[in-house]
Amino acid sequence: MRENGPQDWSGFLEELHRVKVYLERSRPTAVNLSAALDRIEVCCQAMSSNTRPEEGLKFLLNEAGRLEAEDQLFCERIAAFGQGIIPARARILTHCNAGALATAGIGTALGIIGRARASGKDVEVFADETRPLLQGSRLTAWELQRRGVRVTLICDSMAAWTMKERGINLVLVGADRIVANGDTANKIGTYGLALLAEQHRIPFYVAAPVTSFDLKTANGRQIPIEERPPAEITSCGGRPVAAAGVRVYNPAFDVTPGKLVSAFITDRGIIRPPYDLESFRRAFV
Amino acid sequence: MRENGPQDWSGFLEELHRVKVYLERSRPTAVNLSAALDRIEVCCQAMSSNTRPEEGLKFLLNEAGRLEAEDQLFCERIAAFGQGIIPARARILTHCNAGALATAGIGTALGIIGRARASGKDVEVFADETRPLLQGSRLTAWELQRRGVRVTLICDSMAAWTMKERGINLVLVGADRIVANGDTANKIGTYGLALLAEQHRIPFYVAAPVTSFDLKTANGRQIPIEERPPAEITSCGGRPVAAAGVRVYNPAFDVTPGKLVSAFITDRGIIRPPYDLESFRRAFV
Repeated sequence: MRENGPQDWSGFLEELHRVKVYLERSRPTAVNLSAALDRIEVCCQAMSSNTRPEEGLKFLLNEAGRLEAEDQLFCERIAAFGQGIIPARARILTHCNAGALATAGIGTALGIIGRARASGKDVEVFADETRPLLQGSRLTAWELQRRGVRVTLICDSMAAWTMKERGINLVLVGADRIVANGDTANKIGTYGLALLAEQHRIPFYVAAPVTSFDLKTANGRQIPIEERPPAEITSCGGRPVAAAGVRVYNPAFDVTPGKLVSAFITDRGIIRPPYDLESFRRAFV
Repeated sequence: MRENGPQDWSGFLEELHRVKVYLERSRPTAVNLSAALDRIEVCCQAMSSNTRPEEGLKFLLNEAGRLEAEDQLFCERIAAFGQGIIPARARILTHCNAGALATAGIGTALGIIGRARASGKDVEVFADETRPLLQGSRLTAWELQRRGVRVTLICDSMAAWTMKERGINLVLVGADRIVANGDTANKIGTYGLALLAEQHRIPFYVAAPVTSFDLKTANGRQIPIEERPPAEITSCGGRPVAAAGVRVYNPAFDVTPGKLVSAFITDRGIIRPPYDLESFRRAFV
């Protein structure tokens, strides 16, 4: 929108809407992006009645900077509150990437872990590789190495055995959307981890800022789950790795029932069960 | 051993032992290979006192043929007995490869599935890709396609969500070793699947011939679990896919507690809980 320069409000709002729909479609499951875009559009519509279109563009740039600074602050607060759930000797299983590469700040789950390590706790992380896109292998393992956190990479299918054999004492993940009953959409595989954690009597924690909470949605059945192209599973680095023409089911996210979440670590503090609209609203005042 | 030709018994037995140790080390977790090798060695030692070394070589070749024919027969019988656990409308989750590519016959788990399809049942299989070596993508998907079975490939991390969203009504896998209390070693990921099946109230079946039962071992803690090279996880098709130098935990198998197994489908029939030495011995008489 910056490239097109200032124009009349009608053209500006039209272009804004086009970009908004494009960005929303890239992340249908997560809520923070679409919520920010909604708010920006409403603000620009309101501004159109009493300001010049140049003010709209300025607002967009300011708002982007504000969102970045806000997310950095949220990460810092999550890291601070999160120290309460990390024992002196922590063996943590994580999934996908909830770190600096996925946020504007130090990350949510990985921010907590990095700070625990920096404060002298004995921390080891087992990182699921996170098929199909390998965010665990490529991003989480790299981030934790750089922060000096002892990290061991496993395949997703090894999580249950690692819980049993390697003394995992907590599971800590991020979230794409948390709804009013605590149901949590996150990277595919999270739901299974939560079930496995329950069976191994290991607490299962979700770290996320207030912007990932969608309290207008009652439960997880109403969260849209993005399905992605078969080639993510049938090929690797451009090479085929599966029987030609095989049918594929490739949901990018799943929904973990709120009743499997031991606590949410948020920028407003730690929220424990039971989860409902009122308990979340109280926490977010 | 065939290349070296007949020699004196002392050289023959020495060479046999060398080959036996080599083959055993290739599959420490599975029991059928090492049991067959033990039996062969004992037989050859006994023969050495009253036959010529040429007879030893002839015995080896005959025994290899006999083992092949026996395994083919076991697969056929497993497929026949297994029909009893496949409903008219079956949505089956499987893991790794327990088919013609992993046995001398039509397979264990996949033999059952292929016969169910051939008999006109409505069968759909969801095949875990089975990281790190992708036996599900490369072998199981291909085999099932060839047998005309509807197959959908998923990542291992999608198993829980697929159970919940796609109406899976049974899990069916093979086994590398089953011990006297029903504890079952199989490809890494099987233990997690069994836990997830239990939580979704889906029966979890293991198909295996009598040769996979190791009734001399009391429980699963005594089964050696092979660990394999980190590069299986950190690279794909020769290309690195993980942060350089990351530590890796790569167990090739895990152990599923017997109490999670709804039934064993064997060449002697279907064995249901409770599992103990006596119940297995009765079944195998």
